[in-house]
Amino acid sequence: MHDVEVLPRTRHYTFDALELDCGRTLSPVTIAYETYGQLNAAKDNAILLLHALSGSAHAGFSNDNGEHGWWEDFIGPGRALDTDRYFVICSNVLGGCSGSTGPGSVDPTTGSSYGLSFPVITVGDMVRAQKHLVAHLGVETLMGVIGGSLGGMQALQWAVDYPNVVQSVVVLAAAKRLSAQAIAFNEVGRQAIISDPHWCNGDYYGRTPPDAGLALARMIGHITYLSEESMHEKFGRARKRANGYYYSFSEDFEVESYLHHKGSKFVERFDANSYLYITKAMDYFDLPDLSSIKAKLLIISFSSDWLFPPVQQRALVRSLRKRNKDVTYCEVQSWRGHDAFLLEVEPLTELIPGFLDNVSR
Amino acid sequence: MHDVEVLPRTRHYTFDALELDCGRTLSPVTIAYETYGQLNAAKDNAILLLHALSGSAHAGFSNDNGEHGWWEDFIGPGRALDTDRYFVICSNVLGGCSGSTGPGSVDPTTGSSYGLSFPVITVGDMVRAQKHLVAHLGVETLMGVIGGSLGGMQALQWAVDYPNVVQSVVVLAAAKRLSAQAIAFNEVGRQAIISDPHWCNGDYYGRTPPDAGLALARMIGHITYLSEESMHEKFGRARKRANGYYYSFSEDFEVESYLHHKGSKFVERFDANSYLYITKAMDYFDLPDLSSIKAKLLIISFSSDWLFPPVQQRALVRSLRKRNKDVTYCEVQSWRGHDAFLLEVEPLTELIPGFLDNVSR
Repeated sequence: MHDVEVLPRTRHYTFDALELDCGRTLSPVTIAYETYGQLNAAKDNAILLLHALSGSAHAGFSNDNGEHGWWEDFIGPGRALDTDRYFVICSNVLGGCSGSTGPGSVDPTTGSSYGLSFPVITVGDMVRAQKHLVAHLGVETLMGVIGGSLGGMQALQWAVDYPNVVQSVVVLAAAKRLSAQAIAFNEVGRQAIISDPHWCNGDYYGRTPPDAGLALARMIGHITYLSEESMHEKFGRARKRANGYYYSFSEDFEVESYLHHKGSKFVERFDANSYLYITKAMDYFDLPDLSSIKAKLLIISFSSDWLFPPVQQRALVRSLRKRNKDVTYCEVQSWRGHDAFLLEVEPLTELIPGFLDNVSR
Repeated sequence: MHDVEVLPRTRHYTFDALELDCGRTLSPVTIAYETYGQLNAAKDNAILLLHALSGSAHAGFSNDNGEHGWWEDFIGPGRALDTDRYFVICSNVLGGCSGSTGPGSVDPTTGSSYGLSFPVITVGDMVRAQKHLVAHLGVETLMGVIGGSLGGMQALQWAVDYPNVVQSVVVLAAAKRLSAQAIAFNEVGRQAIISDPHWCNGDYYGRTPPDAGLALARMIGHITYLSEESMHEKFGRARKRANGYYYSFSEDFEVESYLHHKGSKFVERFDANSYLYITKAMDYFDLPDLSSIKAKLLIISFSSDWLFPPVQQRALVRSLRKRNKDVTYCEVQSWRGHDAFLLEVEPLTELIPGFLDNVSR
């Protein structure tokens, strides 16, 4: 019999201080996390799962509030991350707004939220914070580190920074550096927030937040997460009004309603400043030197992902092969665009368990 | 000897009234236009050139103010649109802000700018307004109608609506309907404007205009006009600071400066309400029935255009072929993205003159 925590709660681990790439020290640092499955006696069955821009520690199962986990279909007995075999850890990134220390947290030196006085962080900083958590949980080696998009960047950073800790890495829909186009999309998202008069130079906590700007940033993001084909499949030119157009600036098309809905839902759960900090960390992500890596790697592309297109994963694979790393590459055929890493349960459930099984033996 | 107007001026033609697709009538209507070359005695050498979202009547040559024409390299003696042979007409679209009647024009019934009381217009309305201008210029048949992007949509609409007037059409980087993804990008651009508190429900004339929102819309647009490859070629991850990052929310990357520059330049010459109206006209564009067309057609794609990707032009060509239309298709290999229709002078100067020559004989 296994002892799965069916309704996990998000827990919090606080440590004293973290030195950051920018040269500043953040103190104290809290990391929100969830775990699924059990760490075995040999402590060799831990997998660290890393979330993307808007994710949280709540990856698996539905929690007490009935909230779905962001990778729920991949976590559980018999699933891609089999909780009968593995001890899965997922934490909210540093700079986030779902329990980990971020710009919305209270700065103990002032008693007010950090806002823009929060230091600009990097993916390396996020990973260093996670290392504290992993150590706290008694885990010395990670048999797997897995993530998509920003999560995939973190996974690569883990492999580079902690080669003696990380045994394997699964990188989904990510790259070894962020492209100019992705930086550009991030910047317009940030400008949408910064241009919102409610943003008030980041000092809006306890007041009206910059919801319009954050919603707009999210709408831009959502276009990049879907493929042209998936937009066509989902919406095409389907209209709200059956016969013709409204001839006004209301929503004529279903795709507009979808984006508005995504935008307005997002502001209920996300902090605009965290959006600024996390996208900046993505922009800074660039790993020119992969030579330290010792982990086995599984790199996965999605054919219709145009935010992190397959050409980028192939470039990553070439860099790894050149350095004689143990790397496997797979391009999953999918029309779902960048979001495929969250949605393509079947092909990923075929690919990932075999890779992990091979590592764990 | 030819008598080319080397320094053309934008002129204006005003007519009494235009019935619109929305059911309303606009009165009066002014259309700003320029012409290059001379209408011949047989009146069979006229070419109508149509601009894209942010264009104007000023297509050819540099004008009195030294302002470059948006298709300057294609217009002139011996160029793609040879002004020794052809009489080229270019007008600012209805709804625009460069001399034609638009939301910034004064409504004679109120004495104030229309703002949002301006009717929502369509590409069909734009074309109907141009028909008035063309008749005014004494032109009964157009040997060519040419445009890229929104200009290409107008060209197709001309061929459908006036089959006995249009002898040939050149459609660059356009489609027979706007895709869901393009509608989505237009909508986030509009929301950027509408969310700007200076927009004031469109009633900002004589006051501070919604520059931040319009700049943001333009930045979003510019990402879609470039290809991932052209962004990579132009900027890559080139930084403003030589050694490392700023660790702040200033512009770290050249691509960010480029977008900011494009945004702030755009607000000097464009009206935010025109941006709303013209993008809405693009969204509404959908030509399910191409059967009326009598013109010869040249459809041109650009390989790296992802806003109007080649798959859309091929679909258009299939629809035309199915109805036994006289259509030629060419995909130009280019890394310049959607903007290629403005920039790929050499391949277009190889393709277009031969096609026009063939039509004019």
